[in-house]
Amino acid sequence: MATKTRVGIVGFTGYSGAELLRILKTHPRAEPVLLEHRSVADTELPLGENAPRVPFRPESLRDEGIKVVFLATSLQVSMEAAPMVLEANARCIDLSAAFRLRTTANYNRWYRVEHTCPELLADAAYGLPEFFRQVVKISTLVANPGCYPTAANLAVRPLIVEAILDRSAGVICDAKSGVSGAGRKPALKTHFCEVTENLSAYGVLFHRHVPEILHTTDVDEHELSFTAQLLPVHRGILETIYVRTEGSIQWSDLLAVYEKYYRDEPFVRLYPEGRLPDLRGVCGTNFCDIGFHVDPPSRRVVIVAAIDNLVKGAAGQAVQNMNLLLEYPETAGLLDGEASE
Amino acid sequence: MATKTRVGIVGFTGYSGAELLRILKTHPRAEPVLLEHRSVADTELPLGENAPRVPFRPESLRDEGIKVVFLATSLQVSMEAAPMVLEANARCIDLSAAFRLRTTANYNRWYRVEHTCPELLADAAYGLPEFFRQVVKISTLVANPGCYPTAANLAVRPLIVEAILDRSAGVICDAKSGVSGAGRKPALKTHFCEVTENLSAYGVLFHRHVPEILHTTDVDEHELSFTAQLLPVHRGILETIYVRTEGSIQWSDLLAVYEKYYRDEPFVRLYPEGRLPDLRGVCGTNFCDIGFHVDPPSRRVVIVAAIDNLVKGAAGQAVQNMNLLLEYPETAGLLDGEASE
Amino acid sequence: MATKTRVGIVGFTGYSGAELLRILKTHPRAEPVLLEHRSVADTELPLGENAPRVPFRPESLRDEGIKVVFLATSLQVSMEAAPMVLEANARCIDLSAAFRLRTTANYNRWYRVEHTCPELLADAAYGLPEFFRQVVKISTLVANPGCYPTAANLAVRPLIVEAILDRSAGVICDAKSGVSGAGRKPALKTHFCEVTENLSAYGVLFHRHVPEILHTTDVDEHELSFTAQLLPVHRGILETIYVRTEGSIQWSDLLAVYEKYYRDEPFVRLYPEGRLPDLRGVCGTNFCDIGFHVDPPSRRVVIVAAIDNLVKGAAGQAVQNMNLLLEYPETAGLLDGEASE
Amino acid sequence: MATKTRVGIVGFTGYSGAELLRILKTHPRAEPVLLEHRSVADTELPLGENAPRVPFRPESLRDEGIKVVFLATSLQVSMEAAPMVLEANARCIDLSAAFRLRTTANYNRWYRVEHTCPELLADAAYGLPEFFRQVVKISTLVANPGCYPTAANLAVRPLIVEAILDRSAGVICDAKSGVSGAGRKPALKTHFCEVTENLSAYGVLFHRHVPEILHTTDVDEHELSFTAQLLPVHRGILETIYVRTEGSIQWSDLLAVYEKYYRDEPFVRLYPEGRLPDLRGVCGTNFCDIGFHVDPPSRRVVIVAAIDNLVKGAAGQAVQNMNLLLEYPETAGLLDGEASE
Repeated sequence: MATKTRVGIVGFTGYSGAELLRILKTHPRAEPVLLEHRSVADTELPLGENAPRVPFRPESLRDEGIKVVFLATSLQVSMEAAPMVLEANARCIDLSAAFRLRTTANYNRWYRVEHTCPELLADAAYGLPEFFRQVVKISTLVANPGCYPTAANLAVRPLIVEAILDRSAGVICDAKSGVSGAGRKPALKTHFCEVTENLSAYGVLFHRHVPEILHTTDVDEHELSFTAQLLPVHRGILETIYVRTEGSIQWSDLLAVYEKYYRDEPFVRLYPEGRLPDLRGVCGTNFCDIGFHVDPPSRRVVIVAAIDNLVKGAAGQAVQNMNLLLEYPETAGLLDGEASE
Repeated sequence: MATKTRVGIVGFTGYSGAELLRILKTHPRAEPVLLEHRSVADTELPLGENAPRVPFRPESLRDEGIKVVFLATSLQVSMEAAPMVLEANARCIDLSAAFRLRTTANYNRWYRVEHTCPELLADAAYGLPEFFRQVVKISTLVANPGCYPTAANLAVRPLIVEAILDRSAGVICDAKSGVSGAGRKPALKTHFCEVTENLSAYGVLFHRHVPEILHTTDVDEHELSFTAQLLPVHRGILETIYVRTEGSIQWSDLLAVYEKYYRDEPFVRLYPEGRLPDLRGVCGTNFCDIGFHVDPPSRRVVIVAAIDNLVKGAAGQAVQNMNLLLEYPETAGLLDGEASE
Repeated sequence: MATKTRVGIVGFTGYSGAELLRILKTHPRAEPVLLEHRSVADTELPLGENAPRVPFRPESLRDEGIKVVFLATSLQVSMEAAPMVLEANARCIDLSAAFRLRTTANYNRWYRVEHTCPELLADAAYGLPEFFRQVVKISTLVANPGCYPTAANLAVRPLIVEAILDRSAGVICDAKSGVSGAGRKPALKTHFCEVTENLSAYGVLFHRHVPEILHTTDVDEHELSFTAQLLPVHRGILETIYVRTEGSIQWSDLLAVYEKYYRDEPFVRLYPEGRLPDLRGVCGTNFCDIGFHVDPPSRRVVIVAAIDNLVKGAAGQAVQNMNLLLEYPETAGLLDGEASE
Repeated sequence: MATKTRVGIVGFTGYSGAELLRILKTHPRAEPVLLEHRSVADTELPLGENAPRVPFRPESLRDEGIKVVFLATSLQVSMEAAPMVLEANARCIDLSAAFRLRTTANYNRWYRVEHTCPELLADAAYGLPEFFRQVVKISTLVANPGCYPTAANLAVRPLIVEAILDRSAGVICDAKSGVSGAGRKPALKTHFCEVTENLSAYGVLFHRHVPEILHTTDVDEHELSFTAQLLPVHRGILETIYVRTEGSIQWSDLLAVYEKYYRDEPFVRLYPEGRLPDLRGVCGTNFCDIGFHVDPPSRRVVIVAAIDNLVKGAAGQAVQNMNLLLEYPETAGLLDGEASE
């Protein structure tokens, strides 16, 4: 049996942090360590959850031999914490938005914050392995993608790159997310009574995940229409995307485009003709499921993409990035049954 | 106190039928009678539900003095039952799709059925009071609109009629419905375990409500993109609709268009700038709530419309139509507190 | 049409307060006024909700001619607010626990608070109309019962009073409540993700509603076993109660006991043999539904009682008490369709 | 890597069967084969689910080298299928109730069926490994326990065996189950709209799982009070059990009793003082979590036991039994991460 690499989690009491712990506990090559930042001492973990706990400080990282640190924290905390991780010569995978955008102007505009370590923005690799695998491998700071952009990019980027879309018709993304995407901090909008038996739209047109989709897909701001809606479910994102092709194409033509990019991707699954993904099929997994319908006469295409926002949209993709950093098989710890082979 | 008109319900054990009974029980001018069709004898009603029950036969309608009959039945049953109602000189409000389309060809294409009383299609009034009130008043057979088309028509028709849309960009309607829209008959797709914590798309592009939207909005088949999705909620429909305007307009311009049509409509509510409807706000009511965002530079408009599929999308609208037929105030029995004034 | 009495609501942004507003808006004899206490100015009400808003001060009550004030507030706020209401010569219906118990010692023990106006405890009427109607009518301060005790008392008190229980076997009450019972203030325990697809027990044996059940049923502390559990539903309480009778009795004998107390009660419904209440049957109503099974050989009885915690368990019962104070029909505003007769 | 044993699943389209497939796919020593019985040909499996499919016939079992067959079928089908499995010299693990009771009289009384292979009843081992491990190991036919009895037995049996209960006070079990316990066959009671935002009791006092609890705990029919309630959740059972001890005991005394039986059990977890199990903690796992409160003055004890009805209550326990039959580690395939060690 191979030795295990020690990896740290800051923010283990949140939903993404807890999911990281869940995945890493069964990872064949990694051993999680809980890094205590600020007051998490009074947090009661579920029965059976245990892992070593040490304070989050550069010296602790060195003393404990921690090679990779996951920041499952807010944008503000991540801007403080990432430099500390790098100072300790550990590599950093940040699950917040702190290093996803390229310019401080974008942080001012979309997040209304002044970025406190802009010097790191240029170095951060955008951790969507299906497209940026080679850059991730050699980076010290990985910006783990947002949940909405992960699904949107995987669904749309091949069509953009292959230039088969009628760009004048725009890209319309109607996104629906489970409540865990809003974080664990109590708020009225995540109160059970406000969510159950309800569906509400928020972030219409100007959701803050928009700039992330724009810079990775090369779509222009005026071409993209993005609406986020809150579903009465725990986890899962489903995006229904409406585009138009330049010329009239058949379902099999579009499949060929997707297969060119995803044939060998372990975490992207293409649905057969006539079937579409749902949340059930991806929840608890690191898969992004993609299906689509085409209407050749009108050149309209409807694409449905589904992910688990806490896995492929957060903790699972972060572990996929960790596998790249540590040169482990990219699927290690992320596919049922793979550990036993 | 005014005397009450006796009105009959066929199909009272289904969700729409039960909702009709719930509304009619407190209607100041109507008295519901349950009409037994086929084997409903073994159906146990909830505690406290009671109303006279008589067999559904033309002679019963005459003997009981029933003036209006609601058919909360399947398309097939409605095609048989509507002529029987008319034969008894009662007026008929059909909640199925049996009389919503204008041609038998459309029934062949979209419902894959041979229409068995095509002679009634021309006479049926399409019961969307906000647009066809005058025709409904004098009709003997009202085709109560489908739930999806009700929300879509109310959201889009003013923009079509006023010719402010860039038709080349199409009308994209991303619709989400609660499970009661699928009826009460048990099926795997409505099993609790298949629906909870899930979201699934069905009827992409070619849902059978499409022709109904087309003929009432004058949109062409290739302009409309309609996707239906099943939400893990009991009741409610929310439609997010994406269009582009011909010229660049402001939020207040669009509001003016809607107000032209809905200023005096008791059941259409327009949201103020910056707010959007949700299911919670309409459930249990006969309201259709409409809100929208505009992005003048890109001429994109996102409209959100919400209704309760069992009320404005079925039983409530049927009672609204009944009020028109019987020359009662259109809101009778449909607004909280109105009965007491 | 009769003139309406102005009644005030303190705490209208909470779930019970909103429910009070919903009920009072359609009440034939009352007109609600929203009383602003502390910072509720930034609270956005749902579309269509409107009522006059005035500051909560004794002089406002006099100026506005407010005769009854509902306190839908916390125990702490109610202890401050009730004397202010009485000072303005208005009558007070308090929905918190502030005046339900008889001794300050009980407040120390069960709520861990020092009662700040103990002089009012003796005067407060316990507002369970089915048993204390006459006292309520003449009181100035009504302690509206807790949601759990309302269902428990209605289910058990007739059997205690009639002395048909084997007291040595105890009274075991397994209670389940929807999340609105925990209030609207955001907390981790009411976060959607913590509640959905879960069921958890809390307050086993020593829930703070226990003393309220004890003093109204004359059950001794060691006889009562009470467990509260949090259901993944918005509203509703279902209590399954296990007792043993002194002698062997039949179902019809037990029914006769209940009918003695409830035959003429408009808000207590007894289920027929073989059927039991569920949440669906009471949600949105002021009913308490009661059903039961008996096993004569073992003398065991299982009673199931259901209420809507926001209606019969809070706002509905409060309006029922208001009707008593104002000598209106006890059901005014609380039965569907009653307004129209 | 060890060779794998081929094991067959009859009834793989149901919820228990699908869960068996999910678990067995990642089992380090077993390879699942889907056995087609009756018309399952038209069943569409979720994307990514695949396993060899062969007809369910004795010769197929021999040809395919299948050593163990799981029957995830109805009682009726299991009575037909079990003899076929044994005839093919395979060992049988039946998840239905067909072989759990000891007498045909009990089948007549509780299931209202005539048992068609009573000769197998005596040979069937009751597959609750925590108590009957040695018998299971050498048996050819294992009756996998019901979901309710699994939790009830694990919670109560130690207290019965150690004779610390006051039997005159009875054993009162208030059980709540997720909807998957009712099976995947569509029915009105499992329709989403009937279950969501509801809670209903069924099977009060005379649920058919009662005789199974009785014969494994040695409790008399008149001592046990069992009520089953349907929760609006997908999976999970929580039982709240009320008993009285013979003498006054402390929490730590009761813990010592449980530890005597469960200290070395891998799938029973005892909660620390002051905490109680919930569904969240066990869903997706093979654990039975047990917690309890004691009130020494009144000798009352409240025990809360939680399992996932599809895992420890069905498929997981069946795999635990398979591990015993095949002399594999009892936890093989059932603990996260265990495969990698």
